[in-house]
Amino acid sequence: MEPVLERLGEDECLRLISPGGIGRLAFTGRYGLSVFPVNYKVHDGSIMFRTAGDSPVGEDLRTGIAYAEYKVAFEIDEIDMAAREGWSVLIHGPAHHMDTSAERALAEEIGVEPWPGGKRDDAVRITPIRITGRRIRRPAGH
Amino acid sequence: MEPVLERLGEDECLRLISPGGIGRLAFTGRYGLSVFPVNYKVHDGSIMFRTAGDSPVGEDLRTGIAYAEYKVAFEIDEIDMAAREGWSVLIHGPAHHMDTSAERALAEEIGVEPWPGGKRDDAVRITPIRITGRRIRRPAGH
Repeated sequence: MEPVLERLGEDECLRLISPGGIGRLAFTGRYGLSVFPVNYKVHDGSIMFRTAGDSPVGEDLRTGIAYAEYKVAFEIDEIDMAAREGWSVLIHGPAHHMDTSAERALAEEIGVEPWPGGKRDDAVRITPIRITGRRIRRPAGH
Repeated sequence: MEPVLERLGEDECLRLISPGGIGRLAFTGRYGLSVFPVNYKVHDGSIMFRTAGDSPVGEDLRTGIAYAEYKVAFEIDEIDMAAREGWSVLIHGPAHHMDTSAERALAEEIGVEPWPGGKRDDAVRITPIRITGRRIRRPAGH
């Protein structure tokens, strides 16, 4: 039997990503299209993470966010290589630099932390405006 | 001690991604920025995969590739959540639709296969024009 590709509803997507973990941030900046993994948490329906270390791309992201609510994409997935099944969720929305003292305190409280060190590690929040997802599964007996 | 963020050279990046597996394809199409996981192989320094099932985004990608050598990004990473270490590689380059009979035979031979079913599942090759990577590691004793 053929594997099945299902569209996932928004609620199911939010449920799947709610534990946090590793997601991939994608945005178009001065250096073209960038995609890199970040350690994220979900809080109040938003994605939160810290920018990772000092780098041209990190600087690019920070500059973009500083000047505008920067449109980014955020992808989360979970793949079972052995079963060849899995799901992926794609979020679109503006990225916001959490720079007020209240926002900094919130980031501290929910414990978003960057893995690499660096002098700059600003917290960022993505507010989803579009959430889409899909799942591949293999019918039993195959 | 602080975690260390290292830049990876092109050779090291190619070595890390050479086993194939899951990577994330990112491209800007009619529906904005799309990012989704695909099952890839490396052949002759190129990334190869099949487009996954019938979907607006798959159609978008196929249309983009059909009309031009479409510029895409491809991200591969391996993250150790427990150790909070890992690497990521980002490839930029044109995506090419492998549609001649010789190309189709090659895709068959190296065994790139899509996980979801669908009437259309064209093979795609990305020829890297830029390869960048980074690794986060924690110095021993921390």
